[in-house]
Amino acid sequence: MDSAKLQRYCGISRNIEESFINIHPIQRGGVLTAEAKKVLLDFGDGYSMCDFCFEARIVTVKKPPVVDFIQDLAKFLDVDEVRPTAGARHAKRAVMEAITEPGDTIVLDSLAHYTTYITAEAAKLNVKEVPHSGYPDFLLNVEDYAAKIEEVEDSTGKLPALVVLTHVDYNYGNLSDVKSVAEISHKYGVPFLLNGAYTVGIMPVSGRNLGVDFLVASGHKSMSASAPIGLLGTTSEWAEKIFERSKIKGDWSGRTFGAKEIHILGCPPVFGPPLATLMASFPKVVERVKHWDKEVEKARYFSESIQKIDGIKQLGIKPKEHTLVHFESPSFHDVAQHHKRKGFFIYDALKKRKIMGVHPGLSKSFKVNTFNLSWDQIKYVVETFQEIAEQNGITVQ
Amino acid sequence: MDSAKLQRYCGISRNIEESFINIHPIQRGGVLTAEAKKVLLDFGDGYSMCDFCFEARIVTVKKPPVVDFIQDLAKFLDVDEVRPTAGARHAKRAVMEAITEPGDTIVLDSLAHYTTYITAEAAKLNVKEVPHSGYPDFLLNVEDYAAKIEEVEDSTGKLPALVVLTHVDYNYGNLSDVKSVAEISHKYGVPFLLNGAYTVGIMPVSGRNLGVDFLVASGHKSMSASAPIGLLGTTSEWAEKIFERSKIKGDWSGRTFGAKEIHILGCPPVFGPPLATLMASFPKVVERVKHWDKEVEKARYFSESIQKIDGIKQLGIKPKEHTLVHFESPSFHDVAQHHKRKGFFIYDALKKRKIMGVHPGLSKSFKVNTFNLSWDQIKYVVETFQEIAEQNGITVQ
Repeated sequence: MDSAKLQRYCGISRNIEESFINIHPIQRGGVLTAEAKKVLLDFGDGYSMCDFCFEARIVTVKKPPVVDFIQDLAKFLDVDEVRPTAGARHAKRAVMEAITEPGDTIVLDSLAHYTTYITAEAAKLNVKEVPHSGYPDFLLNVEDYAAKIEEVEDSTGKLPALVVLTHVDYNYGNLSDVKSVAEISHKYGVPFLLNGAYTVGIMPVSGRNLGVDFLVASGHKSMSASAPIGLLGTTSEWAEKIFERSKIKGDWSGRTFGAKEIHILGCPPVFGPPLATLMASFPKVVERVKHWDKEVEKARYFSESIQKIDGIKQLGIKPKEHTLVHFESPSFHDVAQHHKRKGFFIYDALKKRKIMGVHPGLSKSFKVNTFNLSWDQIKYVVETFQEIAEQNGITVQ
Repeated sequence: MDSAKLQRYCGISRNIEESFINIHPIQRGGVLTAEAKKVLLDFGDGYSMCDFCFEARIVTVKKPPVVDFIQDLAKFLDVDEVRPTAGARHAKRAVMEAITEPGDTIVLDSLAHYTTYITAEAAKLNVKEVPHSGYPDFLLNVEDYAAKIEEVEDSTGKLPALVVLTHVDYNYGNLSDVKSVAEISHKYGVPFLLNGAYTVGIMPVSGRNLGVDFLVASGHKSMSASAPIGLLGTTSEWAEKIFERSKIKGDWSGRTFGAKEIHILGCPPVFGPPLATLMASFPKVVERVKHWDKEVEKARYFSESIQKIDGIKQLGIKPKEHTLVHFESPSFHDVAQHHKRKGFFIYDALKKRKIMGVHPGLSKSFKVNTFNLSWDQIKYVVETFQEIAEQNGITVQ
C-alpha cells in the first residue's frame, strides 16, 4: 500500500455545506439535532458510554443516565421493555432467532424493506407475502393477512411463526393500518412485529394502542441518531423470551455470562456516537412527534405542487399520510434522453441550488422526504423543481 | 414524560478534558485519531456514506472511495476478501450462521471474549474449551486444540464445525500462538477463525501468514474508529459461502435482493461515523502497526515499574507481549478496606491527576492499556501510581 495514496481516506467529505437542504428519502429523520452534534465528538471513541459500567450491562449505566433513558424510551414507544440494537435489522433478526425455527414461515407485507426478507433468509424462514394493489397506489390490503395466515396453515400444517407489517414502507411512504393487522394476528394467535423504522421518532407510535408484540425502530432513520442504532420494544409477555439471558457455560472453565442477553448478542455495540446522539436528540424527538399533522400538511402541499409540473405524478396513497413521497416523472425522463448530462441534469441543477438527496442520475422517478423542513424550505424546493422543469421546456400549471 | 427532565439527555458528557490520559484496558486502540475527529461531524447523519450509492452495496460506493478502501483493508489484513460488519461479534455470528448447524460443537480458547460464547449460543452451538494454565499466567496450551478436536469427534461422531482462537484476550492481554492452532485445525480439516479484536490495527497481523480462514477485527477496539464497526476477512476459498448473496424471492411479488449478502444482513449499517472514522484513521493505523515493537517495550517498562509497588504483581504472560496489562494489587485492596472512599480511592487519585480508564471502585486488581501512549505519558502514569501507593503507606522499591 502506497502511504501517500492512503492519505485521501483522511480527507473524505460529503462536500456539502451546512446550508444545503437535504431531501433524501431515507435521511430526513436521521439528520442530527444540534444537541446530537454537540455530544458526537465527546463520545466518539469506542466504549465511551462505558466509563462507569458496573454491571456489565450498558442498559444499567447511570453516568451518563442510560438506565433512565431506556425507561423513557419504553414510555415513548409505549412498550413494556426496550433494548437498543445495532440497527433495526438486528432487532428483527433477534425476534426471528428467539421465536422461530428454521423452516417456519412468516407472513409479511410485499412492501417490506429488504432487511425483513434478508433477516428471514438468515433465520432460514420461508416468506408468504401479503400483496399490494400495484401501480399507482401500491396499497396493501391488510385484510389479506387473514387469508395468507390460513394459506400458510393449509400448506404447512401449522400457523406462521410471525406476522410482520411495515408501518410505512421506504418506497412509496404508504402508511399501513396497523390495528387491523394486529387484530388479525391476535385472532389467529400469531405474534405480530411492526417495523416502525420510518415512523417511530417522526410520528406518534404507541406499541400498546396498536397492539403489537414487537416494535422495531431505527435511530439513524427516524430518531436523529448516528448510524447504526435500532430499537426493539416488546410486551412483558414476550420480554423474557426475546431478551433471554445467556445460559451457556464453559465446559472446562465453568464461565457464564448471565448478565448478557443472547439474541441481541450481549451489550449492543452502540456504546459510542449512536447511543449518545440518540439520547441527546431524544427531547426534540419526543416533542416533534406531537406536530406530525403539520408535517403531513407540508408533505401534501409539496406533493400537490410538484404535480403541477406536466408529466409528474405522485405514486402511493393520496393524499399523502407520510413525508416520504415518490413521484414518477416521465417528462423529466424525456429530457434526460437528449440532455448531455443524461438523468444527472436534475441532480446537477438541485446541487447548484444547494438541494441534495435526490438520487443522482435517476429521472424516470424520484423520491424525496419533506420531514422537518420549514415551510420556507418546502417552498424553495418546490420552486426549484418547477424552475428546473421550465428551463427544460416542461410546462408548469 | 416530563420534558424539562428529558433535557438532561442533551447535556450528557464524559466530563473529561482533552488533556486526560486514557489508560482504559479496552479503549486505547479505539481512541480516535485527529483525522477521524475531523470527519465525525460531516458523516454524523444516518446514511451519510450513501449519498452516491448506485449499486445498492455500500462496498461499491466510489464517493467517498469505499470501494478502494475495502480493497486496501483486505491488503492490510492480508486476506482475499473483507467486509465491514456491525461489530466483531456480528462477524463471528455471520461465520457461525454460514458454516455451522444447530447442535454442532465448536472448539474455542477458555480466554475467549464473552461474545464468542454468546454468538455460539445464539447459533445453538455447543462449546468445547481449550484450558489455560490458571493463575498467575493463564497460559493457553495451544497443543490442546488437537486433543479437544478429537474429544469432540469421539463424543459427537463428527469433527467440530469451527475452531476459534482469541489472538489476544481482553483479560490478561496474552498473545496466542496462532500458527500452531492454524496447523492443528488444518490437519483435522476444521475451519479456523481468529478473533483479532485486540490485535488487528495495533500490531501487524497477516491472515495469510497465520493461516486463518476467518479473521475478525474490531474498528472501535483497535482501529481508532467510532463504535460499532467490525471486520470479517476470509480467503477466496470461503468467501462465496460466507458472503453468500441473497436468494430469497417474494412468493407473490417475485422481489429479489441479489446484491445483498445474507449473513451480514445486507449492507452492514455502519454507513455513518463508524465507516467514516475507520477510513480517516486508516493511514495512521497502517503506519502504527509497524512500530509495535516500541509499544511492547513501553508495556514492559510499565509493567516492571508498577510491580515496584509492594504487593503488585502482573498477571498473564511475562514479559508482556501486548499492551493490555492486568495487575493483582492486594496491597491496594488492603488500603481500600480502611479508606473512606473504599476502592474508589485509586480512581479518585488518578482522576485528580487527569488519568482515566481504571475501573472505578476496583482495588483487588486492575487492568490498563498503554497502547499509543508517549514515553512521557507512560512515565507520568507510573509515577502517579507509585505516588498513590506511597501516599497510602505502601512501599515502592
